[in-house]
This record gives sequence, C-alpha cells and structure tokens, in this order.
Amino acid sequence: MNVAIVGASGAVGQELLKVLDQTNFPVDNLKLFGSSRSAGTKYTWRGSEYTVIELQDNDDFKDIDIAFVSAGASTSKKYADTITRHGALMIDNSSAFRMNEDVPLVVPEVNGDDAFNAPRRIIANPNCTTIQMVVALKPIMDLAGIERVHVATYQAASGAGAQAMQELIDQYADIAAGREPKVEKFAHQLAYNIIPHVDVFMPNGYTKEEMKMFNETRKIMHAPDIRVSATCVRVPVLRAHSEAVWVQTKRPVDIAQVRRAMSQAEGVVMMDDPEANEYPMPLDLQGCNPVYVGRLRADLADDCGLTFWCVSDQIRKGAALNAVQIALYMIAKK
Amino acid sequence: MNVAIVGASGAVGQELLKVLDQTNFPVDNLKLFGSSRSAGTKYTWRGSEYTVIELQDNDDFKDIDIAFVSAGASTSKKYADTITRHGALMIDNSSAFRMNEDVPLVVPEVNGDDAFNAPRRIIANPNCTTIQMVVALKPIMDLAGIERVHVATYQAASGAGAQAMQELIDQYADIAAGREPKVEKFAHQLAYNIIPHVDVFMPNGYTKEEMKMFNETRKIMHAPDIRVSATCVRVPVLRAHSEAVWVQTKRPVDIAQVRRAMSQAEGVVMMDDPEANEYPMPLDLQGCNPVYVGRLRADLADDCGLTFWCVSDQIRKGAALNAVQIALYMIAKK
Repeated sequence: MNVAIVGASGAVGQELLKVLDQTNFPVDNLKLFGSSRSAGTKYTWRGSEYTVIELQDNDDFKDIDIAFVSAGASTSKKYADTITRHGALMIDNSSAFRMNEDVPLVVPEVNGDDAFNAPRRIIANPNCTTIQMVVALKPIMDLAGIERVHVATYQAASGAGAQAMQELIDQYADIAAGREPKVEKFAHQLAYNIIPHVDVFMPNGYTKEEMKMFNETRKIMHAPDIRVSATCVRVPVLRAHSEAVWVQTKRPVDIAQVRRAMSQAEGVVMMDDPEANEYPMPLDLQGCNPVYVGRLRADLADDCGLTFWCVSDQIRKGAALNAVQIALYMIAKK
Repeated sequence: MNVAIVGASGAVGQELLKVLDQTNFPVDNLKLFGSSRSAGTKYTWRGSEYTVIELQDNDDFKDIDIAFVSAGASTSKKYADTITRHGALMIDNSSAFRMNEDVPLVVPEVNGDDAFNAPRRIIANPNCTTIQMVVALKPIMDLAGIERVHVATYQAASGAGAQAMQELIDQYADIAAGREPKVEKFAHQLAYNIIPHVDVFMPNGYTKEEMKMFNETRKIMHAPDIRVSATCVRVPVLRAHSEAVWVQTKRPVDIAQVRRAMSQAEGVVMMDDPEANEYPMPLDLQGCNPVYVGRLRADLADDCGLTFWCVSDQIRKGAALNAVQIALYMIAKK
C-alpha cells in the first residue's frame, strides 16, 4: 500500500509513524506531508529516510492509497479534494467532516463496518475523549441499552499538541527555578492548576469539546437518543486522558454482568482491584493501546445506573492508533 | 474567649491561626496543643509568642471556651472527653463524630442553627469536598428541591496535609532535575498524574471519601433522600478543590433563576463569564474564603437537571474557615 501522512511533524503524525510500524502495516511506499514550516524535515522510518513535502494543491496524492491526515480542521477542509481526487482514502483526525452525513465517523470496536460507506473517500476519526468513552460504553449498550451519560474529563496537555506538552514541562521547570512560567498554548497556566475549558464555548454554555461528546457518541453508536452531558477539563498531565463516567441504562443491569461484558469487550482492559490500589492512572498508561477501565460500581444515585473510570492514551487510541485501526479493519474485511 | 487549637502545627492548625486573626475572633487567651513531636514549637500570633503544649489526658482544657481540633480522627476520639469535660465546646475537623446522632454536622450557610443542639459539646466540621458542594447546592435546594447528585472531584494535595503538599513540590523538582521522585504520602506518584482514589475503599466499591459526600450531604441538608454518587480524584494541585457537579432537581427549574439564586446565596461567588475565559480555577483561588461557582448550564442529559463547576480552598472553607465560622455564627446568635 502507498501511504501518506499529512501533518507528519505533529504529535499525532509522529505517533502515526510508530503505530504503522508497530502494527506491521503493509506499507509499500510512504510519503510525509507538512506545512511549509516543516517541509524539508527528515524522519527515519523502518531504516529509510523520508523528507517532509510541503502540502500543496497538486497531484502529489496520485498514487496514494491511504492518507492519514492530522493537520487541523482548516487544512483538512482545504485539501480534502487534493487528497481524495485520485482515489486515495482520507482518514481524517480533525473535526472538519465528523458530523457530515456522507462521512462515516468510526471506532472499529463500535461501528467498524460504517467505514465501508464512505462515498467521499473520507472517513473521520472521532474526538479523543469520545473514542475512549464509546469503546467502554459499547459492552454496556449491548447489554442493557443506554439512556443517558454524565462524564467529567481529566484531559492531558497532549490534546493541545506537542508544543503544549513542552509548555507544561517548561512551566514546572520555571517554577522550580523561581522563574515566572510562560503561558502561550492554554488560556491560563496549567502547572499546578485545573482549567475547566477545552476548545471554544458555544451559546448553550457547553464547549465545542463537550458538544463533540454529545453529538459524536450518538453518531458512532447509532443511537440518536443517547443524551450526554460532559464537563471537559484540562489537567497538568502530559499524555492520556481520564474520565469519570456515569451511565443510566435502559434496563436494570447487574454490575457483575457489566464487569464480565467489559472484560470480554474488544479494546477494553479491566484494571479494577481497589484492595490492591489498582485502577487506571494516566502516568502508567502513556503509550499503551487499550482503553483501561476501573472503579466500576453501581450508581448510588440511580437504580438503573453504574459508574466507572477510564483512561486511555489520547495520542494512541484517541488519535493515531484508532486511525490506523480503521484502515486495518478495512483491509482485514476486504 | 479562651481558645485552644489542637493540632496547631498541621496545615489546618496553621490556617486556623490566620483565620482567627483575619476574622477578628474575640480571643482573650490562646492555647496551642499538639503531639509530643510538635510540643515545644513556638508560633507568633497577634504579636505574642505561643508554645505548643503536648496534648495529654489532664485538666489543661479547664478554662477553655472553644477548642478547634484538627489532629485526625483517632486523636479526636481519644481526647474528646479530656477536651469537653470542663465545658469547652469542641469544634472537630475530623471524621470521628460526623455521623453520630448526638453531634451536629454544620456548615453555617446551610444549617447553622444545628450548632445549638450539641448535647456532647461536640460540633463536627464536615469533609472538605462536602462543605463546598453543599454551600453551592443550598440555593438550588431552596429553589427546586434536589433528587440526585453526580459529582467528580479534582482534589488538591492539601487534603492530605502539609507534608503531602511538599511531596508534590519535591516530585516536580526531582523530575526537572532528572532524579527519581519520592512517593510516600500518596499511593502513587502524583506529579504529572491523576489518582482516582482518596481515602480507603469500602465494600461497595466507593471510597470512604465518596461515601462521606453521600452521607454528610444528607445530614447537613436535612434531606435523608438525596442520593449522591461521587468519584473522588486526587490531582497535582497544591490547594483548593474543584468539583464538576450534576444536579437533578425535584421540580423543573430555569437556569436564569438558579443563577440569580446562586449569586445571592451566602458564601457563593459566581465567576461565570465563558466569553471572557472566566471560570473558577484552583491556582487563582488559593487562600480565598468563598465557594466559587462557574460553568453553570442546563444538563443536556436531564430535563430536570443542571450542572456547574465549583472551586474552594480546601484548607479555608473546607476546614479552618468553616470551623471558625461555626463559632462566629454561635456568638452572633447568642
């Protein structure tokens, strides 16, 4: 297969290179694209050197089979036609096309077959916070249906990119050295702080990130009646997002049953032994693939409810890994 | 008034000294008590020097009117009789007596008058996470009743004491210098991490901290039917706890009405201007007295629901300040 990565120098682009290698993705030729700023940068992959090409509206995608695109929504919109017009499949990490009716929004463990219905040759990769939540919700949905979800997130700096991660590290170094920390990538200082604000605010008081969890969950799970209320919060963690989730099921359900279903669910790893102080934590799970679930218990506030805690690496399952898994799912099913 | 502080060298004890001064508390004589380890330590307060006396089972509390006690549940249990037997009123920060029927559990803005019904001369100060939540819930309760609450916390290191705060600072300094960080006060490294575990686990899968939010809310609000499901999480912040709260009211309620009621509520400060990136954050609110509320909006998942974000300094309103406010409430109403 001829593979392109658009946004190769970004945090997700770099992870895509790793994931393609680690999953033994069948790559015949590889092309790396980026902005004029990163054009010319060289990366070594599987022993060969690749130079980043400037993304332009030309015929560079003529022989490409699959393009993994992670360069922001405006770039995706601007270059979608350039990328797909010769037949390449565009797997897009941005929010540009996620809610378009003619673009499937895919998490392979949940709705992999939707990937085959992509009339525009564009498949959208969902938002990171939504991906890890729906992987964990899928077995519950199958078991008892889902009425409603409350979710509070604890989102790592990685969600804002590689430079944001560096800013957090620099802030702690500055504070330790008695210097004033610099604030550029986030609205406020993130070191020693918690910021209840991810993405821009909408007229209803929710942020765009929170509304993504509402809308994307419905589309991925084919459940237009699920109601999700999210509070998305940035925390001073480098990688891996955490979520406290409450689920109201349509039918009453036994926690032991849910535990069994989650243990067997694809993409989920139960890490739930409170007596041994075992539960998922972001520091331990950086660079890991699964969605880790712990603290599973009945919802004391709802007879039809349960609650759990989940952690997953935002750059892997939340972005690069899920994109590659979509392609692998399609190859396997062909 | 003759005032004693038990646990004077701790994080809360030190804050009690500040709060007594800042509130112009009527102190005629002051006695500081502590463990054998801290006995002999000297502190200056309002220009005079005080030496910490070792807490022992003797008559040292004979002339004391009010004793603010913050030295852990086992010390409170062991010395409650020593402290109260000559008539001193014990305002206890620990969990030792909170759920006892003959001990009132008081947040002045919510149930101040309960303080006058203390047959054992003991008044309990609630858990920090509960205090800030019930102050914010009170105007909602008055407006529309409360059926159910979901709450995810973002708790600062301060909740585990002064040494835990220092451990967090040391961990960041060690990491910045390339040294292995030391872990003693928490179950795991807290720097760059999120730990979904505060206090010990109970058989139902909730932690003791989470069950405090369930039980104490009922007692303080005189609402034995409120159902609270909490997930309590430690975050790498020094002081001030944050909470994402979803409330289901008994009667439908308009958000504008709730906003008005919260703006006028005692102890609450609305900080809610998303367009100006204004919402409460722990870094900004260290050392402040009120409970700050922001991100108030309708619950998209519940027609009778609303959700908000609140932040308050755990050592002040969550501990020292609330204890002193109980005493001031009683003095004012006498």
